[in-house]
Amino acid sequence: MEASNLIWNEGKSRLVFRSNVFSIREAESRSPKGENRLFTVMDAPDWVIVVPLLETEQGPRFIMVRQWRHGSGELSLEFPGGVMEKGESAEEGAKREFEEETAYRAAKFYRLGDMSPNPAIMSNRVHFYFAENLSPLPSQNLDEDEFVDVERIPVGDVIGGMGKAPFVHALTAAALALYMGRETRI
Amino acid sequence: MEASNLIWNEGKSRLVFRSNVFSIREAESRSPKGENRLFTVMDAPDWVIVVPLLETEQGPRFIMVRQWRHGSGELSLEFPGGVMEKGESAEEGAKREFEEETAYRAAKFYRLGDMSPNPAIMSNRVHFYFAENLSPLPSQNLDEDEFVDVERIPVGDVIGGMGKAPFVHALTAAALALYMGRETRI
Repeated sequence: MEASNLIWNEGKSRLVFRSNVFSIREAESRSPKGENRLFTVMDAPDWVIVVPLLETEQGPRFIMVRQWRHGSGELSLEFPGGVMEKGESAEEGAKREFEEETAYRAAKFYRLGDMSPNPAIMSNRVHFYFAENLSPLPSQNLDEDEFVDVERIPVGDVIGGMGKAPFVHALTAAALALYMGRETRI
Repeated sequence: MEASNLIWNEGKSRLVFRSNVFSIREAESRSPKGENRLFTVMDAPDWVIVVPLLETEQGPRFIMVRQWRHGSGELSLEFPGGVMEKGESAEEGAKREFEEETAYRAAKFYRLGDMSPNPAIMSNRVHFYFAENLSPLPSQNLDEDEFVDVERIPVGDVIGGMGKAPFVHALTAAALALYMGRETRI
């Protein structure tokens, strides 16, 4: 099929819900055959996720954070990350979230790529970074309602454990795919 | 930190928005320190994603689908998948979506794992399957408003291209991480 036969024309949209973390709009779109349909789209600020690698005498470890997640109602062990703040770049947001949550700083910090967390319903992006050459900071810098345990997990345990508790965060798995893809190219 | 010091107690919730693909509720939760907070949670049916591997004379190929995505407003090249229907198991839903979208059937079909697509705000799960020993069916079986191009992409191109257009779907990257993790264990 020609790519042009796949393309919809996005039309007007109407705000139908707003919370402090995202908003929802109903959006008109015209199909490749010229028919109009309504779709529900979620708008939110962009997110950042960092894959932090710590070399230890026992082998390479990922720095991960264990925290309660209110959507799934369970503990999740995941790469550090969060929501970009107004006025900061993706890299600035990624560094800030990484340092605040883990109490590490990275001498080497670079971009792995970016994606849509869910292109079917979400309009924002998630930006992925890799951090290495890590040194400890004095302490975490958490919000009042953040309770985050920092853990050093062997790289092989994360790769082998993904898709089973506590490795249940799909965006952490997406970050892992970028890390593994990078390793296969080196 | 003790895991018990990370656990919140989820309380009552109140429906605040409903569309035909998801609904939103405001949920009370009590922090490990005993303070009440409100969180916004999205409920939706579970999703399924299939990683289909086709052996060809030119090497291994993933069967992928290219389609317009109304959240991100762009074309995405991704693993087949979709929303589970009422009454079907995750495996039944995964097989159905795979066959409808790609017009292939798999002699070997098994589970890779499951995750939360976004545990911070979503309560549903995404179930991942692997399909191999593929044989073609007569034709796709798409909904009236589905326009889906089926493509055979070299495995290395997907691994190396993830995080750049058209490989922009984070749940496809999560599925790829499970596939790559399985390969490293064989």
